[in-house]
Amino acid sequence: MNTRETLKSTKDGILEIGGVIATDLVKNYGTPLYVYDQDYIEKICLAFTSSLKNNYGDGVVSYASKAFCCKEIYRIIDKFGMHADIVSYGELLTAVQAGFNPKNLCFHGNNKSLTELNFAIENKIGCIVIDSLSEIDLIQSVCEDKNYVQNVLIRVNPGVEAHTHHYIQTAKIDSKFGFSILTNDAEEAILKVKNSKNLNLLGLHCHIGSQIFEAKSFVLAVEKMTDFYAYCKNNLDINFSTLNLGGGFGIYYSENDPKLTISDYENFVKIICDTLISCVAKKGINKPKLIIEPGRSIVGEAGITLYTAGNIKQIKNVKNYIAIDGGMFENPRFALYQAKYLVEIATKLNQPKTTKYSIAGKCCESGDLIAEDVCLPTAKEGDIIAVFSTGAYNYSMASNYNRNTVPPVVMVKDGKHRLIVKGQKPIDLLQYDI
Amino acid sequence: MNTRETLKSTKDGILEIGGVIATDLVKNYGTPLYVYDQDYIEKICLAFTSSLKNNYGDGVVSYASKAFCCKEIYRIIDKFGMHADIVSYGELLTAVQAGFNPKNLCFHGNNKSLTELNFAIENKIGCIVIDSLSEIDLIQSVCEDKNYVQNVLIRVNPGVEAHTHHYIQTAKIDSKFGFSILTNDAEEAILKVKNSKNLNLLGLHCHIGSQIFEAKSFVLAVEKMTDFYAYCKNNLDINFSTLNLGGGFGIYYSENDPKLTISDYENFVKIICDTLISCVAKKGINKPKLIIEPGRSIVGEAGITLYTAGNIKQIKNVKNYIAIDGGMFENPRFALYQAKYLVEIATKLNQPKTTKYSIAGKCCESGDLIAEDVCLPTAKEGDIIAVFSTGAYNYSMASNYNRNTVPPVVMVKDGKHRLIVKGQKPIDLLQYDI
Repeated sequence: MNTRETLKSTKDGILEIGGVIATDLVKNYGTPLYVYDQDYIEKICLAFTSSLKNNYGDGVVSYASKAFCCKEIYRIIDKFGMHADIVSYGELLTAVQAGFNPKNLCFHGNNKSLTELNFAIENKIGCIVIDSLSEIDLIQSVCEDKNYVQNVLIRVNPGVEAHTHHYIQTAKIDSKFGFSILTNDAEEAILKVKNSKNLNLLGLHCHIGSQIFEAKSFVLAVEKMTDFYAYCKNNLDINFSTLNLGGGFGIYYSENDPKLTISDYENFVKIICDTLISCVAKKGINKPKLIIEPGRSIVGEAGITLYTAGNIKQIKNVKNYIAIDGGMFENPRFALYQAKYLVEIATKLNQPKTTKYSIAGKCCESGDLIAEDVCLPTAKEGDIIAVFSTGAYNYSMASNYNRNTVPPVVMVKDGKHRLIVKGQKPIDLLQYDI
Repeated sequence: MNTRETLKSTKDGILEIGGVIATDLVKNYGTPLYVYDQDYIEKICLAFTSSLKNNYGDGVVSYASKAFCCKEIYRIIDKFGMHADIVSYGELLTAVQAGFNPKNLCFHGNNKSLTELNFAIENKIGCIVIDSLSEIDLIQSVCEDKNYVQNVLIRVNPGVEAHTHHYIQTAKIDSKFGFSILTNDAEEAILKVKNSKNLNLLGLHCHIGSQIFEAKSFVLAVEKMTDFYAYCKNNLDINFSTLNLGGGFGIYYSENDPKLTISDYENFVKIICDTLISCVAKKGINKPKLIIEPGRSIVGEAGITLYTAGNIKQIKNVKNYIAIDGGMFENPRFALYQAKYLVEIATKLNQPKTTKYSIAGKCCESGDLIAEDVCLPTAKEGDIIAVFSTGAYNYSMASNYNRNTVPPVVMVKDGKHRLIVKGQKPIDLLQYDI
């Protein structure tokens, strides 16, 4: 199990999250239930923000809303002076309605609509990350109409692709996002923005991948980006004030992943800062304001989903299934990415793990699984099943497949629990039907 | 393009669905937009129901709601005397609220909850398909409390697995669903149900796969199932009155799939009926009532999704992208199954296809594509992009990923269009936030 001060076993072998035992949460809210450990979210927020401040100074940690978007998360990150990325009208609206300052928001995405851009600019959003040539014209025209100057970044591809345990340098960039710095594309976009009188170009943004554990890939990205900043200074006479390195810091899903501690994240940031400081000095460019965008690592491990076991199916010499009351409608990551998760029986943490089970969702689809072949104590109907590291891309990707309802979300801290997102009711699903 | 009387090009090369041109639909409802061709749905319903009636007599075509569930679809299938399968509280509620007779509903699923079973039995649902041993006890106890006798089927696995272009016979069944007839499991379940005084066992249900084009796999399933019916008659003295052969009839998504015509579906059913009649006679069992459960084939090809092209991104020597205003939030099948779709520019059907494009969704995720490398006329921003065969498992699997909203659904017929499901508004997404 992925233990920490706020995620542990009681002496009776019951899962305790933020000082609340799982059985109490289930009694209060039922299952399936998304549970978030607020203390852990706050510790990670503090780790990123303080490490960036201590090691670099002028920097911003911007939470990637897509990992988990609801009003409450904006209230929490706000306490740490963090910014947030949004990628749609809906995410922007959520942040604004939560009272989050739009100046601290940055708008990403490969195909922002005119409606979305209008809404963002009317709200005086802090920054827009430009992703295509046509977007330059679109934003310029919206701003011109409003007689407004908008701060922008440009998304570029530095030719570094980072994955969990490796990274590659590539000369051919195939991505729906941004402009390659390896061709003339990025330069063309930069000059076009520079010539747009209502756009104020702060700098460039890149995003090299997801679920990255290898600091070297970020070091490489910093080197490529500062090379290009130097090129822009020396050849285009453009001095960028900001560098946005995106996110992608990995989290612990299963035994296959390294377990990063809070201080590992701090160190990750320190390596990035040190590299950037040294590159800046070496290459004679202005020290830019540094933005990093963790999303998954802020909320991923903080989230635990609780289920009730339904029937236990034993297929002799083949497999044992525990059917749960959730599934791909509230956690589609196994179906989408064959994602691996740690699983426990929340009331049997101190019992020996004697049996291999696969965890089957309740959707009418054979591929609806949450985990395959995990070792657990003998399970019985009614057991509470806990799946760990479900805080990112679970609630945010939830659907109503099979007309199932999206479960409620609960925040726990210091032995107290509170509902932060209400669960859907079946009748809610009919509100759009004519 | 997948043309038919109600899906064709005007002489000016504009897509016309059910007598309405795509540009009119977009003008009225915007994009993204799910469009359904009612005439085609009705033709397919008629094909299945009439072929079953003409070739077999005592049979039922039961629509699998999970493919596309909304009130209107129940009203349409009801006109053909069809039944429907439901797999959740939400699907049952939708059918009931649409005025569909619960006697014509059948409840499937590997993990039905007590709440769901209570709701189903209170509504006097026609049939429940039992999926596990513990479910037998659960349904028996609910029925006993209500002093009610419930008609049930048992889901079994006949050892036939059918896929698009092939099928296999297997002795080891790994499925979260049902009981194998190749082991003692099915017999154990049958005897347990027989001994449950509030359960009336009508027969068995099997489902051999999805997207099947090979009638031989159904023939094989009929043979296996009737062998087992004969075994039950001869050894257990049980005469089943019903046989449910499930669904899985394939549809045309792309050039990789055979194009089944209406008469091909009729013939598919005829082959199943002929095989069953001959097996029944040969094996000396009672001629059962035959149930088939098409879902995807009823609505799949009837659905077309319309998008507006955003930026067109050309990465020299690599790829061209058309960014659309939809994506994996409203059609997750590419992300889930790497599903292939036919794509057209809805206003350029008579123009030469000169360029390869990939269709990128607007979600902030590299894998958010709808199609890869499809040949189209030169595209420009503002073009209407049509994606075909999106009627099944698109709306029903839609999510709010990135806080995008689920698009509206429109039904067209005889030159008229009407909204059947309202689109979500961004503010709707906040209704659960505290």
